[in-house]
Amino acid sequence: MTRYERLAQSMATEIRSGNLTPGSRMPSLRQIIAQHGVSQSTAARAYYLLEQWGLVRAEERSGYYVAPPPAKAAGAASRAAAGESATVDISELVFSVLDAAKRPGIVPLGSAFPSPLLFPLSRLAKSLGQAARNVSPWSTVVDLPPGNENLRRQIALRYMRVGISQPAEDIIVTNGALEALNLCLMAVTQPGDIVAVESPGFYAALQAIERLGLRAVEIPVDTATGLDLDALAEALDKHPIRACWFMTNFQNPTGVTLPAQKKQALVELLAKHDVPLIEDDVYGELHYAPNYPPPAMAFDKRGLVMHCGSFSKNLAPGYRVGWASAGRFAARVQRLKLMTTISASIPVQAGIADYLEHGGYERHLKKIRLAMQSQRDAMIDAIRRWLPEGTQHTCPEGGYFLWLTFREAVDAMALHRLAIERGISVAPGPLFSASHAFENCIRLNYGHPWSPRIDEAIRTLGELLVHPEVRARA
Amino acid sequence: MTRYERLAQSMATEIRSGNLTPGSRMPSLRQIIAQHGVSQSTAARAYYLLEQWGLVRAEERSGYYVAPPPAKAAGAASRAAAGESATVDISELVFSVLDAAKRPGIVPLGSAFPSPLLFPLSRLAKSLGQAARNVSPWSTVVDLPPGNENLRRQIALRYMRVGISQPAEDIIVTNGALEALNLCLMAVTQPGDIVAVESPGFYAALQAIERLGLRAVEIPVDTATGLDLDALAEALDKHPIRACWFMTNFQNPTGVTLPAQKKQALVELLAKHDVPLIEDDVYGELHYAPNYPPPAMAFDKRGLVMHCGSFSKNLAPGYRVGWASAGRFAARVQRLKLMTTISASIPVQAGIADYLEHGGYERHLKKIRLAMQSQRDAMIDAIRRWLPEGTQHTCPEGGYFLWLTFREAVDAMALHRLAIERGISVAPGPLFSASHAFENCIRLNYGHPWSPRIDEAIRTLGELLVHPEVRARA
Repeated sequence: MTRYERLAQSMATEIRSGNLTPGSRMPSLRQIIAQHGVSQSTAARAYYLLEQWGLVRAEERSGYYVAPPPAKAAGAASRAAAGESATVDISELVFSVLDAAKRPGIVPLGSAFPSPLLFPLSRLAKSLGQAARNVSPWSTVVDLPPGNENLRRQIALRYMRVGISQPAEDIIVTNGALEALNLCLMAVTQPGDIVAVESPGFYAALQAIERLGLRAVEIPVDTATGLDLDALAEALDKHPIRACWFMTNFQNPTGVTLPAQKKQALVELLAKHDVPLIEDDVYGELHYAPNYPPPAMAFDKRGLVMHCGSFSKNLAPGYRVGWASAGRFAARVQRLKLMTTISASIPVQAGIADYLEHGGYERHLKKIRLAMQSQRDAMIDAIRRWLPEGTQHTCPEGGYFLWLTFREAVDAMALHRLAIERGISVAPGPLFSASHAFENCIRLNYGHPWSPRIDEAIRTLGELLVHPEVRARA
Repeated sequence: MTRYERLAQSMATEIRSGNLTPGSRMPSLRQIIAQHGVSQSTAARAYYLLEQWGLVRAEERSGYYVAPPPAKAAGAASRAAAGESATVDISELVFSVLDAAKRPGIVPLGSAFPSPLLFPLSRLAKSLGQAARNVSPWSTVVDLPPGNENLRRQIALRYMRVGISQPAEDIIVTNGALEALNLCLMAVTQPGDIVAVESPGFYAALQAIERLGLRAVEIPVDTATGLDLDALAEALDKHPIRACWFMTNFQNPTGVTLPAQKKQALVELLAKHDVPLIEDDVYGELHYAPNYPPPAMAFDKRGLVMHCGSFSKNLAPGYRVGWASAGRFAARVQRLKLMTTISASIPVQAGIADYLEHGGYERHLKKIRLAMQSQRDAMIDAIRRWLPEGTQHTCPEGGYFLWLTFREAVDAMALHRLAIERGISVAPGPLFSASHAFENCIRLNYGHPWSPRIDEAIRTLGELLVHPEVRARA
């Protein structure tokens, strides 16, 4: 910590302890210099930090005053944050972040969604309107699961582009990938079963495991090389693992991709143990390199991989169309779909199929991939400019999340709460593990067109990182 | 049984035993007359029945021959049917019926869906296309659960028409009512809990109970006065019932409606025991009398009723838009929605809202109610003409299902299987109870414009009712 940071923290402690009451005048810069034996610039910087933290207000020509205590952020966000890190339950935490991301005007660095402005929404609307007008009335019966035939054929064609021969009959259209993943998990587990997940990993997997009465075994993800296969092999020997739920391309939250040889090794390892893999591949189409990194499913010979995809992240957010290619479990997944939500919206299935055929999907994908890549670069540049030296970041080759690990101990939950008060959301590390680990990490979303506002938000995060509450864990 | 039916059955036994092999010639009419001492018309009618059952073929001028054994119906239908009545599991049975209803060209008396031709699909497509074009890109975030605000306001207005003041904030938009019902059930139960359902009742409730590891207590439904409240009171005293899942208007499968006083008594009884009611009211808007029969929710003062509705049965089949007004459980239901399928399709929510405001919903409802009522009358007329005397039927005041109870013992599963072979689906009674009771009953769907083909199908059912396999249970 620098000298001015230490100084600011000691003054913050005075304020928070109540020794300096709201509205009372703070010591002048000159007093501070004399009292603490610091330079003028150190004193000024300390006051600047205190102002950024919302603890003091500057009044022109009259000096600094203790600020009134901040109004708490509305709703679930503050309730969850008040519970603090380790004791907060995963769902509560997740909803606090989601709610925060919904508030208008917030800088959505913690959001799970990319900017809707990056999608061809009016061309999609045209396809949707046309398909709805032209669809046969009997499609309401015929397009029940597995789903609209044309759509399933279009999806099968995309598999073919990466060399995967996937019969359209075994593709089940769902309400987005999250439903596909949930149905696959239900298809292969019973309450009490053990499921392997990534750590850090997608919180929805943890929520599903919680909700279905399953138990989780966390397998570490290396931020450079992805899932730790040795740890998985050990876990498979030690526990009766019934299923794995992994994200193999541009993983959420780290952005890391499992190399092809490791995917193959993963499939072979699971085949040896006869354990199904639920492969969440919703970011695959957002690759910056020329080619789609083949999913683990490409190496599967035994129908053990259930590959789940979606159009929500790369084409049609909010349309809620995803799918599961569930291998030998396809029939079971299809039945679960019928029993729980019957079918994905039928005109919407037809609309997406129409767009895939006629809308210019490849052209759009090229555009959005380029956008994401340049936003990644801008984000990394801002991180280098504004965040403390030694902050580690991943450099994803696709998707729109990156993962920060701070060098010094940080309370990511406090950072989340303070950032929300300043109109910025971040996704704190503890969201991404059942054990609420990764207190020193956050996930940042760069799925929004770069703007001075985002740059400014990263700068504010840099300032909050030396806030006494964020450093409380140190 | 009449004389010719008995005669046909004895000949059928000979054929099925193998004494008469496929392709061999049957005795002539004259031989039959002599051998059995029957009239010519009795012999001719017996052969007619055998032909209808698919056991003999008539060849012009040359008499009757033993038919080749029928090809089994394709897919799950035959697999399920092969399992036979009591041992068939509920899901297997349900899927066999759903699959059968999907086959093109089948007379869908067993279907759960009304004819799509009764809906304003092109006007809806217009609303959908318009809404999709006009919707803000940010709706993909803003319209996350609870859902599109305009749609929730429109739904709240419809509640107001029946005197229910339901805040729009507590309405959660779902992928159809089935998702709403499933989420409500998850919100108030844990595996192992006991749930009260109707008997006969909607099979999806039984499937959900099976899937979530719950246990069912079946409460009898009287085909005239609906749910047996005394039986429910007894069950509440005897078992730690955690929730009830009942359909109070135009119940599936009987079509019966719980009278208003009984609804009130039901709500009071459950309040006394502090047991939530999941009220499935998807057919309410299809009332033939001038007014919507108020749901049980209208009598609820404690937020214990979770009222689930849908547009799938009365406006927009296949669009997959329903909702839950989940009372004090609204927040929990909303979270479960986010965790399982995130959101109903966002342009579709906006499209339905647009239609409700501008499409002429009331006009459409008047038309479809009249159509359903006249189809009910035609169906009842056909039942009286073609089915055995003493066959009891309900006479629903709304919806599009009626329930038949045969006077003589019948194997409804066999009837289902034989009917499928003849291009007709029916929903056999055992589908509607966990104990596979109601072997003597079937549900008929009259949600399709009346046609000679449907009339003919009822006539064929009349013939199959004296088929030896259908009577095997006698």
